[in-house]
This record gives sequence, structure tokens and C-alpha cells, in this order.
Amino acid sequence: MNLLKETTGKIGVLDRESMEKAKGRMDSLIKPPGSLGKLEDIVIQLAGITGDLYPRVDKKSVIVMAADHGVYEEGVAVFPQAVTIIQTSNFPKGVTGVCAIAKQAGADVIPVDIGIKGEMDEPGVINEKIKYGTDNMTKGPAMTREEAIRSLEVGIKIANEEINKGKNILATGEMGICNTTPSAAIVSVIGRYEPIEVTGVGANFPEERLAFKAGIVKKAIEVNMPDPLDGIDILSKVGGLEIGGMAGVMLAGAARRVPVVVDGFISTAAALIACKIEPKVKDFLIPSHCSIERGAIKALELLGLEAMLNMNMRLGEGSGAVLAFNIIEAATYVNNEMITFEEAGIQV
Amino acid sequence: MNLLKETTGKIGVLDRESMEKAKGRMDSLIKPPGSLGKLEDIVIQLAGITGDLYPRVDKKSVIVMAADHGVYEEGVAVFPQAVTIIQTSNFPKGVTGVCAIAKQAGADVIPVDIGIKGEMDEPGVINEKIKYGTDNMTKGPAMTREEAIRSLEVGIKIANEEINKGKNILATGEMGICNTTPSAAIVSVIGRYEPIEVTGVGANFPEERLAFKAGIVKKAIEVNMPDPLDGIDILSKVGGLEIGGMAGVMLAGAARRVPVVVDGFISTAAALIACKIEPKVKDFLIPSHCSIERGAIKALELLGLEAMLNMNMRLGEGSGAVLAFNIIEAATYVNNEMITFEEAGIQV
Repeated sequence: MNLLKETTGKIGVLDRESMEKAKGRMDSLIKPPGSLGKLEDIVIQLAGITGDLYPRVDKKSVIVMAADHGVYEEGVAVFPQAVTIIQTSNFPKGVTGVCAIAKQAGADVIPVDIGIKGEMDEPGVINEKIKYGTDNMTKGPAMTREEAIRSLEVGIKIANEEINKGKNILATGEMGICNTTPSAAIVSVIGRYEPIEVTGVGANFPEERLAFKAGIVKKAIEVNMPDPLDGIDILSKVGGLEIGGMAGVMLAGAARRVPVVVDGFISTAAALIACKIEPKVKDFLIPSHCSIERGAIKALELLGLEAMLNMNMRLGEGSGAVLAFNIIEAATYVNNEMITFEEAGIQV
Repeated sequence: MNLLKETTGKIGVLDRESMEKAKGRMDSLIKPPGSLGKLEDIVIQLAGITGDLYPRVDKKSVIVMAADHGVYEEGVAVFPQAVTIIQTSNFPKGVTGVCAIAKQAGADVIPVDIGIKGEMDEPGVINEKIKYGTDNMTKGPAMTREEAIRSLEVGIKIANEEINKGKNILATGEMGICNTTPSAAIVSVIGRYEPIEVTGVGANFPEERLAFKAGIVKKAIEVNMPDPLDGIDILSKVGGLEIGGMAGVMLAGAARRVPVVVDGFISTAAALIACKIEPKVKDFLIPSHCSIERGAIKALELLGLEAMLNMNMRLGEGSGAVLAFNIIEAATYVNNEMITFEEAGIQV
């Protein structure tokens, strides 16, 4: 709890003076003002986050939090639960979707067992296991408040380690069979949506059984009655350990003034938890793609973010966030490489 | 004319057998089938284009065609016409928007003077000048049919040179003050839209004067009566030399079976011309972003393409296409680096 309090206490606001200067530079570059759109917004945001007018985002990590879910036993997934442990052990081998994309982007993949059901014997996966998966949230809270706080603190710890190694941009990713179910619950509670509005097919769950899946989400909310204003309460009652871990990464990024790129639906649910705990976190987040998962766009809207990428993706693992790394880095190249109208000898 | 005929004659269809195989591989990788969305589509398309199941797109060029427009004298731009020549001379210096993004993406920028008004004295700009800007299309055709064909052939020639150097992916870019005006005319003619529906602010033209700009587009169409079924007729009457050059790049890419990434509104207008000349070209094009220019989304729809990036950009120069290079390359990494469920020992 000390680490969490210490971290949230450090989260400040964006540096407005640096942002004004960055905006002034963007407007003076040899292009119609505003014509580089979100690339300009990113440069200005990065200046506000770092206080640096020429920030770099060339040391990249995606932190992939892996955990299991007790609600799996309600039949909300088509993949076997063991896929969580098998797939997580594949991250250090570099053979999963996010690994492939990260290799192209020059990013490190940091897999963390924060709550997988079963023993992880792959040494490349960081062991921060809090418990062997959450409890079945249709029968009671997914975890205790204490465990929820620990999941946030694991995320903070791992993010701090990456930042201490010199990383200047982070992304959140996850692996956890059936974790679109707790994510839908979080988005439903925070956005006051009916579960059916934000419950999607996840990893190829049959479209015709979505009403059933939404019913499980609804039951979990009714059984636990999470307080919509208390992020930790929502996380513990209808969340997941990997979701807490990702929210912790976001809190640490904000505290250390390092941007965190948000992946798809599950990462966005984690971002909603992080922002419920400390609303100032939002300014340190950069959106990436809009997952094709039903509810993804509503979750982004709740957060007040707009996706850059529309790739019809719904893999998770941080794959969409890592795809955005190069775009964000391109924004810093615009800032560093372009010259001003004055330098070009053009009078406007 | 021989080069154009020879090139269009070589354009074939996608290799369906390679596409089937690539689809089979995509479905067998350790992810829910389809969950990587457009990245999977790209892998399949690249297999169809190249006939190679493990294609690479790591040798990248953006060809930036630069030209001026006689219709400038009607008052359809706020920037001085001389910006075309000044900005084009900045490309070899690496200081423009597309250059910055290309540096991050590891792409070459190939600037071509295909019709700038004035003498270009920067040796880094390839001299393929056809004439000193088009004629004023509100008073007659922008250029002769012969000149339009030459502009296509310049594009073919430059693209062939890049492909001969080993480039395995190309993008189209342009520089030409007021070239959103001929682009709007092309989209209007091909899509049978009222000019006002597809006329936008371009490089910061005042919103409140859009009706005036659309009126110029309308007049150009009424004066010239281009044949909506004849791409070369549309290009010569209400197009531009750089638009013809970009269309030529697309024709050559298709003929040589090298993918061509389409940038924003003006590139999309060029793609519409290329596809009117030879509809099979479309399968060799990869969309990038949706420009914020009014008419951009309509132009993409006409082409049957959907943007991957929504960046609120409207710079041109090929900037959005180059931003997509890394995404397309990431798709090839997914294909090359991921393993199958069978290899991972997961039974589904």
C-alpha cells in the first residue's frame, strides 16, 4: 500500500510551458499549421509529460501481464484455460503476435506471471504471482482488496524497473483466457452501460452466445455491487490480476513522467481503473488502436481518447500498442528533423 | 505511349494459390483466427502480389512527384505558388514532413520535378519536367492527352528505376500548391459527386471560402467535360502532372508486382485515375491513412479501400503512406516470427 500511495502521490500535471513551446515549434515547421494532426498532438503531449522539447521514445518496452480468471468455469471462453500458461511461456521465445510486432518496432517484451493458474517453469517470465487466478466473480469478489492493491503494486514495480533501465516509453499488454469478461464488467460499471452493450466475442466466442456471456457479466456485477467511484473496489470485485498489473504500469508511468501506450479493450479497462484511482493519469496515456471487440470504442470514449489505428485487431498481448510505437516515434522525428519556414526562407 | 501500353499489358491478377496458402498459415498461428485483422489481410495480399509466402517489404521508397497548376491563378490557395519549388528543393535536404517520417521508417525519399513552374536548381531532385505547370483548367484542358500520357510514363520510369534498385515496396507522395483542386475535380468526375461534396480546405484554405473553391472545380469540369470512363481524358483535362506521375507509379508497381502504398486525398485521386486506366491495379495498392481533407473518405470508398490510420493529417508529400510502411512491415514479421498452434503444442 505504501508503494501505491507513494506512486499516486507523485503524479502531477502536464508541463504547460513546455507544451506551449512545443506547439509554437510545431506551428513554425515547413507545413501548413496543424497538417500533421495527431503527430503534432503527440509531440506536444510528450513535451508536457517529459518537460523536454526534444523528447525521445526510442527505448520501448511492452509489459505483458498474464493471469487466469475464476469466472472461466462459467463457460465464457472457447479456448482451454491452459492456453494462458502455454502462451505466456511462449513470450520469452519471441514467437507470439506481440513478439513479432515488437521485433519490428525494436521493443522489448516483458512477460509477467501475476496470477496464472499453474506453475510457470519458463525462466524468461517474471514471477510475481499473487494467486493462482482470481476467484469466480459470479460467486463473490474476484480477489480481496489487498490482492487488488498488490496487483497494482506489481505493475508499479515492473514499470519502475523498466524505467530504471532507461526505457522512455512503455506499453501495456496482457494474456489471460476469458479476460474480456472482467473487462466488460469494468467498462459496464464505470460507464454505467448494460453489460450486453460492452460484451464482445473476445477470442472467437460465438456471436450467438453473447447474451449468455453478458448475463455472466451482469451476474458478477449484481453479486458484488462494486462502487463505481472506487477503482480499487471495482478491480477487486469484478477485475483481474493482469488488469490491476496494467493499471499499475500506467500509474508508475505517470508518476515517473514516462508515456504509456494503451492497447485494446482489456488495456483500456485497466486504464479506466487507473484513472479512477488517479484521474491525472489520463494525460500520460497515449491511445493506439481501436480493437474490433464490441465495447472497445465505448471504453476509449469513456477515457476520452481516440484511436490512431483501425486494424480490426482483437488479439491483445499489447499487439496494437506496440504497432503504435513507430507512429509515436515518427512524431519525435517530425519534431527533430523538420526545419521552420524561417530556416527554409519561406515567407508566409 | 509504348511504355504505358507495355506496362498496363503486364498487369495481372493476384496469385490466388499463394493467397490460399498464406491464409492457411495465418489461421494456424498461435492466436485466435482473424484476431490480427488487417495485418493478416496484408500478409495475404502481399503473398498474392509477390507469389512469395514470406515476402519482405524492407526496401522502401516514397516517390514524391512535384508540379504546379495553372488553376492557381483563380485564387484557390493561400500559400504562394513558389512554395512548390522551394519545398521540393527541401526534400533532398531531409527536412520536410515526409523526410522526417521516412527517416524513422528507413525509407528513401525520391523527389521528382515533373512540372514545377520555374527552374529547379537542386541536383537531388530528379528532372523529368514535362512543362512549367499545367494550364488553367477553368479555361481549357490542364494539359494535352500526350502530356498526360507522358506524366504516367514518367511515373512508370521512376518506379521501375526504384524496383530495379531492389525496392520491394513503394509509396506515392506529391508536392504542388493547390493540387487539392484538380484532385477534387477527379473525385467529382469519377464518383459523380457535386464538387462541394469533395472540396476541402487543402493547405489551410479558409473554410468559409470552400463554396468559391468548389465553384472553380465545377467550372473546370463544365468547361472540359471529361469522359468519366476514360482515365487519361480526366487526367489531361482536370488533373495534374504530379497526379499522372503518381498514377504511373501505381501502374508500374502493379506490372512489376510490387505493392504501392497510397497516401491521402491527392494520391487517392491518382489511384482512381490508375484504376480507371487498368482496374486490376487496385489489388496491388495498400491504403494508409484517411486524410482529414473533405472528400478523402469518399475517394477511398470509390476505390474500395479502408484506411488503417486516422491521424487527422492532411500534409501530403506521402507522409501518411510512409507512416504505414512500418505497419505493413510488422505484418511480414507476424508471418515470419510467429509459430503455429501445432508447433506450440496447443490443441484447439
